[in-house]
Amino acid sequence: MSRFLSSKYGRLEAYTPGEQPTDMKYVKLNTNESPYPPSEKVLKAVNEAAVSMLNLYPDPTCRTLKRKLGALYGKNEENVFVSNGSDDILNFSFMAFCEGKIRKVKFPSISYGFYQVYAELYGVDYKKIPLNNDFSISVEDYFGNNANVVIANPNAPTGLTISLEDIERLLCETPDYVVIIDEAYVDFGAESAVGLIDKYPNLLVVGTFSKSRSMAGARLGFALGNKELIADLEKIKYSTNPYSINRLTLLAGEAAVDDNDYYMDNCKIIADTREYTKSALIKLGFEVTDSKANFIFAKSNAVSGKELYEGLKAAGVLVRHFDNPQITDYNRITVGTKEQMDILLSEIAKILKEKN
Amino acid sequence: MSRFLSSKYGRLEAYTPGEQPTDMKYVKLNTNESPYPPSEKVLKAVNEAAVSMLNLYPDPTCRTLKRKLGALYGKNEENVFVSNGSDDILNFSFMAFCEGKIRKVKFPSISYGFYQVYAELYGVDYKKIPLNNDFSISVEDYFGNNANVVIANPNAPTGLTISLEDIERLLCETPDYVVIIDEAYVDFGAESAVGLIDKYPNLLVVGTFSKSRSMAGARLGFALGNKELIADLEKIKYSTNPYSINRLTLLAGEAAVDDNDYYMDNCKIIADTREYTKSALIKLGFEVTDSKANFIFAKSNAVSGKELYEGLKAAGVLVRHFDNPQITDYNRITVGTKEQMDILLSEIAKILKEKN
Repeated sequence: MSRFLSSKYGRLEAYTPGEQPTDMKYVKLNTNESPYPPSEKVLKAVNEAAVSMLNLYPDPTCRTLKRKLGALYGKNEENVFVSNGSDDILNFSFMAFCEGKIRKVKFPSISYGFYQVYAELYGVDYKKIPLNNDFSISVEDYFGNNANVVIANPNAPTGLTISLEDIERLLCETPDYVVIIDEAYVDFGAESAVGLIDKYPNLLVVGTFSKSRSMAGARLGFALGNKELIADLEKIKYSTNPYSINRLTLLAGEAAVDDNDYYMDNCKIIADTREYTKSALIKLGFEVTDSKANFIFAKSNAVSGKELYEGLKAAGVLVRHFDNPQITDYNRITVGTKEQMDILLSEIAKILKEKN
Repeated sequence: MSRFLSSKYGRLEAYTPGEQPTDMKYVKLNTNESPYPPSEKVLKAVNEAAVSMLNLYPDPTCRTLKRKLGALYGKNEENVFVSNGSDDILNFSFMAFCEGKIRKVKFPSISYGFYQVYAELYGVDYKKIPLNNDFSISVEDYFGNNANVVIANPNAPTGLTISLEDIERLLCETPDYVVIIDEAYVDFGAESAVGLIDKYPNLLVVGTFSKSRSMAGARLGFALGNKELIADLEKIKYSTNPYSINRLTLLAGEAAVDDNDYYMDNCKIIADTREYTKSALIKLGFEVTDSKANFIFAKSNAVSGKELYEGLKAAGVLVRHFDNPQITDYNRITVGTKEQMDILLSEIAKILKEKN
């Protein structure tokens, strides 16, 4: 830290991304990426002709992509915001809606770790609402029209979903505050709240191309909401970094929307692989949550969460373990290909055998 | 604006990017892009194999790119920050260094319009220091150890430079405040201040791949400074959007540094084309500044700035006119290829002829 840094950031703890060790080649099941490559259309969109035009600024309005996303979700261009990954959008949302008179936000105590970082960055009072003992979320805990709400659906790292009925009850109970539903993992088995945006001007639904659309490396996120909410996000974007999406990612994103069936088919395969792996883990004595995401949240009755994480890493399989004591028995395991999951299961079986 | 937007942003005026009309094909000389494509190495770096790995997150540390940039400028990796365009870095710098106890910043009254937007966004007291009558900057006007300083060298839209001696005098006079030298256009004929970062821990030099490196469409900016200043910027990046640079841009950036000679050769061609165009404009009765950037700042003695801008636009040539009354007689004209400049000159000659 330099002596020039604003004192208010002195104790800020930044987010810690999932590790990316380079000491050996890992079966990488720790950052919830899709194991499948982008579609042929995406590969073709980012071809040499596109690269040769890199000398020209991209379209900061991202109009074509917005129109395509709007059409996909049955909404208008003015209901769509796009930016450099969904983290960028969450960041803008905390800036836009959690400062000034509304300086409070509620989110689950176990969820995406970045919500707390944003709250601390912008000096927003935050309340972490405990999950139920089975890790489920009771929306009643977020009622009370005194704070914005951020909930991931499915939640991470548990993979558990909340119903559209619950989201609608929450929206009704907090009409003067913004409710952000973070749908990073929605395509793997949850219900999207996008259909509610016309009815509830306080709803912002945030999505990403990083998970179901195989574009974590391209950095593209989107949000759908009432046109005034979207205009607020545009104002923040045009006051910080208007050209935040590069030319190649814009083209890749447009092609990915055109090729939606390819990605939704991959989601079905991933959901099948998830259920296959869950069953196998249960047979190995694990408890698993009813995850509807592209990851599994699992604890063994025979080996601690940390020990399993370390044993798997030594065997070349990366999963994610969290230091949080409430979930220290668990690991979050990204659903890869069936072949990758078979390697995982085989390595877990070996670790368990050594324990006995 | 929604009723949810933080009241402090109610009157914020966002930045207005240069226009990108799509009604016809223009000779585009309005946003200071390079007219030359990326080098062959960059084209090859972003090939199909790279695109097929878009499903994986990029390296958030950007270590390879930082090492290459450090080596290019004779500095260490820890002295280098990279992010999603230099706007992103300027934004982080206003966040990091202009809040808390240091809530003041000075910048030239005529310069990159975004400085004022950042100051207003973060509620920083700013003082716009008038330029001299000839548009030059007297660094003495920025002395007084009571505010951070942001100066573009060369300045935009005038193209005028300040000397390293002046920058060093400024650094000596403001030891407790950060001095940001925005070198977006430095490669076209100004002297970089990078050599001063070891001596002055309050110096941050900001650069971009958008101008001299033909990558405006890829979104890549960098900064060099004392390692503590750089660590502060990393903290803000990891608290907002750690994966801000996508995989393809990272690879393109690395290849562009490898191919530095290609880009510096292009800069020489652009500087030659600039001088050629300046001479021709002077013959047509224009006054031009001694621009060392990839643009020309010119006013005609026969036609108003706005009239010329509009006449050129109607003829299919886009230049940039600013509404600011102090420079309303001028237009900022990006230096394109010699062929593009000949079209510009020919259209200007036609407009002048019609006036007579």
